[in-house]
Amino acid sequence: MQGWQLNRTNEPLELVTKPDPEPGPGEVLIGVKAAGLCHTDVGMLHDPGWMSKISAPVILGHECAGVVQKIGPEVSGFQVGDRVGVAPLDAKTGKTIGAQRDGAYSDVCLVGVDQLIHLPDNVSFEQGAAATDAGMSSYHPLFKVGGATKGMKVGIIGVGGLGQFAANMALIAGCDVSVADTSAQAREWARGIGIEKVYEQITDMAQDDVELIVDFAGFGSTTRDAISAVRSGGLVILVGMGKLEATIDTGDLIVRNITLRGNNGGTAQDIADVYGYFQTGKMHPTLTATSFDKIPEGLDRLEQGAVSGRLIAVRD
Amino acid sequence: MQGWQLNRTNEPLELVTKPDPEPGPGEVLIGVKAAGLCHTDVGMLHDPGWMSKISAPVILGHECAGVVQKIGPEVSGFQVGDRVGVAPLDAKTGKTIGAQRDGAYSDVCLVGVDQLIHLPDNVSFEQGAAATDAGMSSYHPLFKVGGATKGMKVGIIGVGGLGQFAANMALIAGCDVSVADTSAQAREWARGIGIEKVYEQITDMAQDDVELIVDFAGFGSTTRDAISAVRSGGLVILVGMGKLEATIDTGDLIVRNITLRGNNGGTAQDIADVYGYFQTGKMHPTLTATSFDKIPEGLDRLEQGAVSGRLIAVRD
Repeated sequence: MQGWQLNRTNEPLELVTKPDPEPGPGEVLIGVKAAGLCHTDVGMLHDPGWMSKISAPVILGHECAGVVQKIGPEVSGFQVGDRVGVAPLDAKTGKTIGAQRDGAYSDVCLVGVDQLIHLPDNVSFEQGAAATDAGMSSYHPLFKVGGATKGMKVGIIGVGGLGQFAANMALIAGCDVSVADTSAQAREWARGIGIEKVYEQITDMAQDDVELIVDFAGFGSTTRDAISAVRSGGLVILVGMGKLEATIDTGDLIVRNITLRGNNGGTAQDIADVYGYFQTGKMHPTLTATSFDKIPEGLDRLEQGAVSGRLIAVRD
Repeated sequence: MQGWQLNRTNEPLELVTKPDPEPGPGEVLIGVKAAGLCHTDVGMLHDPGWMSKISAPVILGHECAGVVQKIGPEVSGFQVGDRVGVAPLDAKTGKTIGAQRDGAYSDVCLVGVDQLIHLPDNVSFEQGAAATDAGMSSYHPLFKVGGATKGMKVGIIGVGGLGQFAANMALIAGCDVSVADTSAQAREWARGIGIEKVYEQITDMAQDDVELIVDFAGFGSTTRDAISAVRSGGLVILVGMGKLEATIDTGDLIVRNITLRGNNGGTAQDIADVYGYFQTGKMHPTLTATSFDKIPEGLDRLEQGAVSGRLIAVRD
């Protein structure tokens, strides 16, 4: 196997070659076809705080779709050749690919069978990869925590890598969707898929009487504005980690009985549900393809804010 | 009637005399026996932001117990002479006594019959008054929003005017209670009623694996520390308005799936439930009596932090 390995904070990723791992009991070797590039990877590259949380040296990449290449003992439900998406976290071991064990910026990736989700034929590997993290991390807060349902007035802050999935799924689910994004390109995308209430300023959402806002930006000020914009008694779910702190108006939070809830991650079932949304043919997230050899360059572009939508490294 | 009236921000309360109001349909005139002094009153006195929210000039005092003195038409369930507590908010008109209509820093107070709660014989007027705001504002977040129940690990920040009720009721309800307060006197009170896990630092609560923390201080740093101390997936309820903003660690909020919820107020039923706790004979909040003529002085002491527990103006 050959993959992009993180050795230490602020060192460039190293392209390493080593023997393919052998699947043990309950394990499956995936031939990687698509791997999404995530802001979390940028954080791991540059923020020393990550070193205690991951098992470096480690091949990065936690957003993966591919084909079952080799199966270990005690594996059922999957066969060699199956198209699959991979849930980042192995609940049995508590290890996440691309963090505590080698990930998907490689030709192969060893995972637990419980991490696998069958990828429907009409969902591409790029879509399949993006759904495992960006999709799941949008779907779970919006529908499982926020309880978004048909007719519900829902606000989405930031329709970039993650939020575009949420806005698109909310629209398909029949929610009354409002969107705020500072990027004109992102706002244009939102209008293009049929969302009418599109704003540059988050506080403009207040006129739409939204009862649920999901903040996929998380730049502190965005969370503060979300609390201000949501209706009394409403819920703000915070997903984005643009900054790691926020100064919020607690007087408003108290007087208007607002709830602010942090959300991280989701489940394999969430990923399967996202695949269901893709099967409707109505999902139009911006997915930009790149190649495996350009992963380091892609992460640089991500850091510079030069990526629209989700950047996916594909492999034939 | 004679009462302490607020005319404008930063002007002393004025002792005014005017004719007793006549109860209209559904209204009752209360002879005030006890009125609690609240930090909110201090805010109204000095923070110009309140002027747009209240109907000045107005007699302050929103924490009231007394005796039914006169009854208007279309009133049932209460008779002249009944001992009662008064819910601050009249849900029918949206008006709160001591804010949008004359309040309890007076000999009489006109309220809607739906604001009345029968005061049990073995609950004093001082207790009866304190329960209507301090008690309700403790009970509602702890039990109705937080779902505190027997055996639940619960943290209380600040056992002053409000939090002392919450800590005491949580103990009676059989919760596993932890308490944090910067005041040695408050910590001594908590130990005195039988709470063992008593800390000066909020972050020390983390060792107790608390799943619910109610922050009755609300000084920004207390909310930040509460988020840090609560268990993963836990709930922090913010009630205290010591400061009107907080800088919180949103990274922690997200990664550990923490919920922060603002809570304001409660219901007449909550007040009746608090009276039930008083009837157990196990409630020992610090209630300090003062007299009606010393209300302005009492509010000054409250502002200076020179009051322990709840200060109640009593009238024979």
